[in-house]
Amino acid sequence: MRHYLNPLDLSVDETYSVLRLAEEIRKDPAKYAHAAEGKKLATLFYEPSTRTRLSFEAAMLNLGGRTLGFPSANVSSAAKGESVEDTIRVISCYADIAAMRHPKEGAAAVAAEYSGIPLINAGDGGHQHPTQTLTDLVTILSLKGRLHDLTIGLCGDLKFGRTVHSLINAMSRYTGVRFIMISPEALKIPTYVIQDVLEPRNIPYEETTDLEAALPQLDILYMTRVQRERFASEEEYQRLKDSYILDAEKMKLAPEDMYVLHPLPRVNEITMEVDKDPRAKYFYQAQCGVYARMALILTLLGLADTKLEDREVWKRPAASQRIVNRFACRNPHCITTIEPQLDQVFVVTDPERQICRCLYCETKYDGN
Amino acid sequence: MRHYLNPLDLSVDETYSVLRLAEEIRKDPAKYAHAAEGKKLATLFYEPSTRTRLSFEAAMLNLGGRTLGFPSANVSSAAKGESVEDTIRVISCYADIAAMRHPKEGAAAVAAEYSGIPLINAGDGGHQHPTQTLTDLVTILSLKGRLHDLTIGLCGDLKFGRTVHSLINAMSRYTGVRFIMISPEALKIPTYVIQDVLEPRNIPYEETTDLEAALPQLDILYMTRVQRERFASEEEYQRLKDSYILDAEKMKLAPEDMYVLHPLPRVNEITMEVDKDPRAKYFYQAQCGVYARMALILTLLGLADTKLEDREVWKRPAASQRIVNRFACRNPHCITTIEPQLDQVFVVTDPERQICRCLYCETKYDGN
Amino acid sequence: MRHYLNPLDLSVDETYSVLRLAEEIRKDPAKYAHAAEGKKLATLFYEPSTRTRLSFEAAMLNLGGRTLGFPSANVSSAAKGESVEDTIRVISCYADIAAMRHPKEGAAAVAAEYSGIPLINAGDGGHQHPTQTLTDLVTILSLKGRLHDLTIGLCGDLKFGRTVHSLINAMSRYTGVRFIMISPEALKIPTYVIQDVLEPRNIPYEETTDLEAALPQLDILYMTRVQRERFASEEEYQRLKDSYILDAEKMKLAPEDMYVLHPLPRVNEITMEVDKDPRAKYFYQAQCGVYARMALILTLLGLADTKLEDREVWKRPAASQRIVNRFACRNPHCITTIEPQLDQVFVVTDPERQICRCLYCETKYDGN
Repeated sequence: MRHYLNPLDLSVDETYSVLRLAEEIRKDPAKYAHAAEGKKLATLFYEPSTRTRLSFEAAMLNLGGRTLGFPSANVSSAAKGESVEDTIRVISCYADIAAMRHPKEGAAAVAAEYSGIPLINAGDGGHQHPTQTLTDLVTILSLKGRLHDLTIGLCGDLKFGRTVHSLINAMSRYTGVRFIMISPEALKIPTYVIQDVLEPRNIPYEETTDLEAALPQLDILYMTRVQRERFASEEEYQRLKDSYILDAEKMKLAPEDMYVLHPLPRVNEITMEVDKDPRAKYFYQAQCGVYARMALILTLLGLADTKLEDREVWKRPAASQRIVNRFACRNPHCITTIEPQLDQVFVVTDPERQICRCLYCETKYDGN
Repeated sequence: MRHYLNPLDLSVDETYSVLRLAEEIRKDPAKYAHAAEGKKLATLFYEPSTRTRLSFEAAMLNLGGRTLGFPSANVSSAAKGESVEDTIRVISCYADIAAMRHPKEGAAAVAAEYSGIPLINAGDGGHQHPTQTLTDLVTILSLKGRLHDLTIGLCGDLKFGRTVHSLINAMSRYTGVRFIMISPEALKIPTYVIQDVLEPRNIPYEETTDLEAALPQLDILYMTRVQRERFASEEEYQRLKDSYILDAEKMKLAPEDMYVLHPLPRVNEITMEVDKDPRAKYFYQAQCGVYARMALILTLLGLADTKLEDREVWKRPAASQRIVNRFACRNPHCITTIEPQLDQVFVVTDPERQICRCLYCETKYDGN
Repeated sequence: MRHYLNPLDLSVDETYSVLRLAEEIRKDPAKYAHAAEGKKLATLFYEPSTRTRLSFEAAMLNLGGRTLGFPSANVSSAAKGESVEDTIRVISCYADIAAMRHPKEGAAAVAAEYSGIPLINAGDGGHQHPTQTLTDLVTILSLKGRLHDLTIGLCGDLKFGRTVHSLINAMSRYTGVRFIMISPEALKIPTYVIQDVLEPRNIPYEETTDLEAALPQLDILYMTRVQRERFASEEEYQRLKDSYILDAEKMKLAPEDMYVLHPLPRVNEITMEVDKDPRAKYFYQAQCGVYARMALILTLLGLADTKLEDREVWKRPAASQRIVNRFACRNPHCITTIEPQLDQVFVVTDPERQICRCLYCETKYDGN
């Protein structure tokens, strides 16, 4: 049994199989209308996220399967204090596959440790949201016909934007990919993304504050929200905000075959006039999200033609590799902060540099 | 593609086709058990309305289709500030047809402008609730065998009662219909309903405060809630409330073949003893609501034998007819009040009298 | 038409048929994958209970049926003040069978009075939760191969534990059953359970505060939550709490073939290390809950091979036996306290001892 907690939980080959299947589904959805008949998907949403939840439900219904679950914690048993571990063990009796959204980082990893069914991380706080990344890949592949040799512009809040970090990670696996990071100084991509992902793999990148200058070079422009409260000051926000709003004027600077993506919801960082531009593909992206999830569900259920390797990509480290209850995770958003009965588990992820990380939220232990 | 935002969005002939189909379904539901197989209905309820939502869901399930959606805004993305326009565009990727309930007037009209799938207005504030009206027509037709030549009593809060206004509008299309409006002075039918609907079409009507006097003349008695806070004073409420409570005693004054309808929920305006009277048809009406919605869904999906005319009854006025951002809608309940990015659009609806109305909530521009 | 409000609403024979069907389903679920096709279950949850709700939904989906409903009162029409009676009459138009959870005692009984479809009580306050009991019976039968000749340990909060009282009631129907009640003094089984159930049927029982001493004698250990606030004092809680926590050490005292059940959710009364013990069967019990509900749904819908007797086990007492509006139910949790329009109905349940009880919540009239 395999889970999908992180875009890298599927190997390059496996990811490619899922993307190809998504593309096949897109071309002939009727062929898959009964592919998951008799199967049930549980949607376990500890915080509301209608778009993601309904995308999963649409995907499962399109496959002829059924859904059950809860749309927010206040209509669930979480209020009674049941742990994520016990909930997923019970849900394993009710469904064949589950998608979990949780405000705490590492919640899906905890659930996967105890789950009897394949688990999909539908977002765990600011940590991971891998089906958004899969959606982005399906969309890019469908629009450009390839994932290699692309110049990808990432624009907006690159500091806190979880989907941007995941996309960089996922695209870094393909050759000839180049990133242009467009953001105000205060919202630049974090140093660790550069040091951990881009530099080790020699991936070319540029950082700029100038969207207009970057536009002519791009194959894909990936927009994200820039929230007012993230700026250093109100003055800076007022000065800069328009630079990161994509409008019809700026679109004139973009190539004919540059496509605009956005994980949605947008607020005002893309004006509504851009929606009519044939290069605006963020709603098409929502459609691709359904195909991506259909392909993923079929694959994890073992119903796709290409089978996943029979190994745990979600690597439960052996007991001998675990550092248990020696120190506590300092990440205030870690699932361990609200589930006191959980062991505090750290794992050495980089023996050379002596880095160890929380098993759940992957936060580095800082040595104190 | 057609939407259903207003009872008048279907022509008299089209309405009749839907009513006939509902009647067919009522007689032989098994025949339609797979009629919408493979189709998905999205129920987008920005405010809870269990009865309406479950009626839609039952309808879709009865047709072999599937449902997905959200039961209230606090479990939806609305909290994240996504606009109705963007939501419906995404939902158009997930479902084949949608039913939307929203507390703001005109919300469904905004959604219809951007929707890629047929949209049904399941209630937009105090503005319209057309499937309730369709339900009322199905029920009356099934009980009386006709929609023409009927005396219809409307009792209770006729001032604020949205369903009453809609029913008057819808029934005014049939010949020989006569209305008796029974209400306290403070809750009389608004003048504009008389001036805009009844008088232009020469439809006979009476206004009275006396339910008992009206009862012997009626073919249908349509009851509505009378809310205490709607009265001019507590004294008036105490003095009048019993006059508008239907009980077994008053039912003795009614003809054998007069039927009682109520859009539900009732509070105490019909006593529980009346429930046993065979003329009490408000629960049967709930059943008819499912048939009405089944017929409407099939028709809008193009799966009914009788096809809708291929035109937009939801008339998007051409750009040249729109008065854009010249003045703002003054209706404090209009959807434009919470969606600042929406254009303020007015349309001249009556060139002779120089009346123009908000494109969404249909409130008249008052010239100031 | 039959309802299931109380474990005793099914006769011993009928219960046995349901249990046997559940066992058949467990062994060959595929055989029942279409058994309720075309049928709809309404889940009416006036308070959230995710596990119970999803267990019902999983059961119905496993049978090829469909579900609709609401997960909590704040997303339902209850806020608009609709009565349970009117709601169930409307729901009877939408679904073929319903499961209702309500915080008030007797709510399901009120609903059953007016329901046009079979109604299952999914928990009415502290009163009854019969499908939990059915689940317990299915689990015990499946683990031990019998329901007779068993020593059952009940541990934890026996005073307020609704599931424990129901289980005693249900198991008291089988010969050779013996109970060992293990609890702190403050949380002992109520005297009326002993006087009303155990003594009249000469069922052997012991009361003890010592879990460790009881363990070697047990066939089944039924654990429940012990809530801190239920103890007489914080000191008592601190002194006693560990005695009622089941851990690996205590499990060494239990027989090889003693199984541990728990209605879930647990908080900390069973340590996570016990989960790995093959005798820990509380998650298996959750699985059995789905089979139990599948069997019950099929039986109430009349789709099981064995038909229920065509009588009302939910005995609506004839008008002549009802004491109407003579006195009010004093139970502050009774449904009548929030539905003022309901008649106050009492019924003489034991003419000899002159006991009469509220028709809905079954609270004794105390003569004042």
